[in-house]
Amino acid sequence: MTDSPSPPLRGRHPGPVPPALVTDLYELTMAAAYQAAGIEHEATFELFVRSLPRERRFLVAAGLDDALNGLEEWCFADDDIAYLAELGTFPPAFLERLAELRFTGEVWAVPEGEIVFAGEPLVRVTAPLVEAQLVETWLLNRISSQTMLASKAARVALACGDRTFIDFSARRDHGVDAAMAIARTSWIVGSGGTSLVAAGRRFGIPVSGTMAHSFVMSYDDERDAFRDYARTFPGNVILLIDTYDTIEGARHAAEVAHEVAAEGITVGAVRLDSGDLAALSVEVRRILDDAGLPDVRILASGDLDEHRIAALLEAGAPIDAFGVGTKMGTSADAPTLGAVYKLVEDAEGPKMKLATGKVTWPGRKQVWRCDGHDVLSLHDEEVPGGRPLLVQVMSNGHRTFVEPIARIRERAMAELAALPEQLRSLEPADEPLWPVEISPGLRDCAERIRADLEAESRR
Amino acid sequence: MTDSPSPPLRGRHPGPVPPALVTDLYELTMAAAYQAAGIEHEATFELFVRSLPRERRFLVAAGLDDALNGLEEWCFADDDIAYLAELGTFPPAFLERLAELRFTGEVWAVPEGEIVFAGEPLVRVTAPLVEAQLVETWLLNRISSQTMLASKAARVALACGDRTFIDFSARRDHGVDAAMAIARTSWIVGSGGTSLVAAGRRFGIPVSGTMAHSFVMSYDDERDAFRDYARTFPGNVILLIDTYDTIEGARHAAEVAHEVAAEGITVGAVRLDSGDLAALSVEVRRILDDAGLPDVRILASGDLDEHRIAALLEAGAPIDAFGVGTKMGTSADAPTLGAVYKLVEDAEGPKMKLATGKVTWPGRKQVWRCDGHDVLSLHDEEVPGGRPLLVQVMSNGHRTFVEPIARIRERAMAELAALPEQLRSLEPADEPLWPVEISPGLRDCAERIRADLEAESRR
Repeated sequence: MTDSPSPPLRGRHPGPVPPALVTDLYELTMAAAYQAAGIEHEATFELFVRSLPRERRFLVAAGLDDALNGLEEWCFADDDIAYLAELGTFPPAFLERLAELRFTGEVWAVPEGEIVFAGEPLVRVTAPLVEAQLVETWLLNRISSQTMLASKAARVALACGDRTFIDFSARRDHGVDAAMAIARTSWIVGSGGTSLVAAGRRFGIPVSGTMAHSFVMSYDDERDAFRDYARTFPGNVILLIDTYDTIEGARHAAEVAHEVAAEGITVGAVRLDSGDLAALSVEVRRILDDAGLPDVRILASGDLDEHRIAALLEAGAPIDAFGVGTKMGTSADAPTLGAVYKLVEDAEGPKMKLATGKVTWPGRKQVWRCDGHDVLSLHDEEVPGGRPLLVQVMSNGHRTFVEPIARIRERAMAELAALPEQLRSLEPADEPLWPVEISPGLRDCAERIRADLEAESRR
Repeated sequence: MTDSPSPPLRGRHPGPVPPALVTDLYELTMAAAYQAAGIEHEATFELFVRSLPRERRFLVAAGLDDALNGLEEWCFADDDIAYLAELGTFPPAFLERLAELRFTGEVWAVPEGEIVFAGEPLVRVTAPLVEAQLVETWLLNRISSQTMLASKAARVALACGDRTFIDFSARRDHGVDAAMAIARTSWIVGSGGTSLVAAGRRFGIPVSGTMAHSFVMSYDDERDAFRDYARTFPGNVILLIDTYDTIEGARHAAEVAHEVAAEGITVGAVRLDSGDLAALSVEVRRILDDAGLPDVRILASGDLDEHRIAALLEAGAPIDAFGVGTKMGTSADAPTLGAVYKLVEDAEGPKMKLATGKVTWPGRKQVWRCDGHDVLSLHDEEVPGGRPLLVQVMSNGHRTFVEPIARIRERAMAELAALPEQLRSLEPADEPLWPVEISPGLRDCAERIRADLEAESRR
């Protein structure tokens, strides 16, 4: 709290967070209790979303690549263990075991980009109980946040139809991790790219950008800002025209477009970021057309989401591309997804829980996509005419399934293009619009366990 | 897409994201255009929240420590620059400059944990224009997300009053970064700790945890689960009692509490995670009291937020502590914060923008906390009787202000304890309830610029 300290102050540099520490303390206390009690059997857990938010008619699975990378590098470093020892809670034998612990399990999962619904396992983990338990928080955090973001971005993609949209959300997302995730997942479902440079670099997806109001304000005359920008980026000129007055800005853009055309530079687009976008885009289009610039495209941004985009296009707004930010990047209308990770089977067989309102279907399961509905079955059942969604992605703790992002995007875009009409609507839905049926085998299994549990609790 | 590949597949391990790449592409294109045009003056930008969500009567500033750490290590690595070069967009002279670029500016900011309102600068950056521009996305992402989360957690703290609350949100947050942020910011505003081990380790805050339903389900009899857990963690026994039937679970917990008491082990609490918490907590309290266990506390969790906690306490629910998850960790009722970063001054003096509905007050500013209101002034004005909120935190690109988290927590908790009545209410507010007045000097400055701009645009 001083102006000129000596030596200089420095904050503590936070390195990356190790996946094994992205865990709720109770995962560790439970694991320690299992070990202390000699409970070492294999267990199967499934990760699924209990119910869809009203604002979502379907989900797009995402986050798996990240999740599996974390499982592959799962370990507790010496200083992590020293920290846990300092807590004074854990038996020494457990801390010793943590030092050796790696994730050695088998994982099945729905590939990223697949359309999924409530109750369908997105990830199924079979591993020694301690391992399967410890990865819960990590898997939920990775899969639920990214599935939520992919599902929101998919709605934006549906609203845009053949128009382009670009992820502009980095500044408003819930942290850097979320910003990377929405850039990647919006690309998967069909965006034209992202403004976030780190995401472009990491995922190999297109980066896109124009200029900010502050750029225009750094010049006395906005035309000078336009000229300098066009000359610096002759291959990719997008001019922001609403800093002072959008209509005047459009005229200035047209004037500069003609000037720089003489130098062989083409203005590609103008951007509107405020005001009545429907009305302004019509006026701006007319100004550009009247100036003989029919090929200059119009990009709109500013508080857009799927509903506003749909309304703009419905109203015939001549907007060619949308920069979509905050509302997509935070999944603002449904910012939580009730994903859970539940024990479904252990050494004694299938398990289920009966707590009020929170029933879980027992056993290792498979999901089948059929004509007009899905079927949730036991893992070893066959559902004729169905396509199984869960594939094996890890064996003995090693990935057996890695997909390039291009493949994931291809899947998601194909599925969105083929989406049934009742799922395409952007309106809220009060009930599930895609039936997820329970197979006879799964239903029998659940009935059997329920009867046993009820008999026991009467004893 | 194969079961047993050889050699084993591996995902690409994503290292930490360098702060300099957490930038929208347009920051880089603008910076390049400035350089190409020889525009090298100093500029001042301010980061503020345009307006509060209806659901927020105040904000708690947060994210500064993180933000400043990023500025101190701000640099473009060789391979980052190689990536930018591959885009084929940037002039070589700009890429050369990036290799040398560090953040060398001066930063003033409101310390973390301070109560703030719409329109008040939280961070003010004065630096060579290129630097000040490039850090925009990073600062907005860090400050706006963490301020949003701290502000939500502060409402939970207000609702809890003298009861404890613990952050249980890690699994549902928008990524790991967000999970770390809510653990830290909820601690700042008064939580009793977090379940997230990584946050406990990094920030030195208490970690807390109990057990999951799956733990209880791993035993044939829930009493065996309770016994094993109690014996493994004799110092910190919290038993989850709602896996099968909450009332039966409470009786089992009481039974085991008496058993292990004989071994010198005290059951500290039971946890309810489903059902009608108000009614169940009363019944469970009675069962525990009747069993002679008045000191066993009741911890409740399950879809809680400040409204449900307030309603439970209002109804007299005998709940001692709350585990708060999803709704706090995602700021579910107001998951976005409209923070912006605006040019307010450059070599020519104070600046302002007039785009529709988005007016920015010009010049370097200070915020003064006065009795019953705040005043927004020019930086060099004095406001008698006011306490200035912005302090210098960086000089020449080095931090001059680093606070321990305990100091930040002390500030936030003191401010929340002293919060005026109209700001304590959890109800939505249709208008600002804390006046932010404009000083005479700032008003004059704005009027002068507006007159100039309007005169210019009429020319």
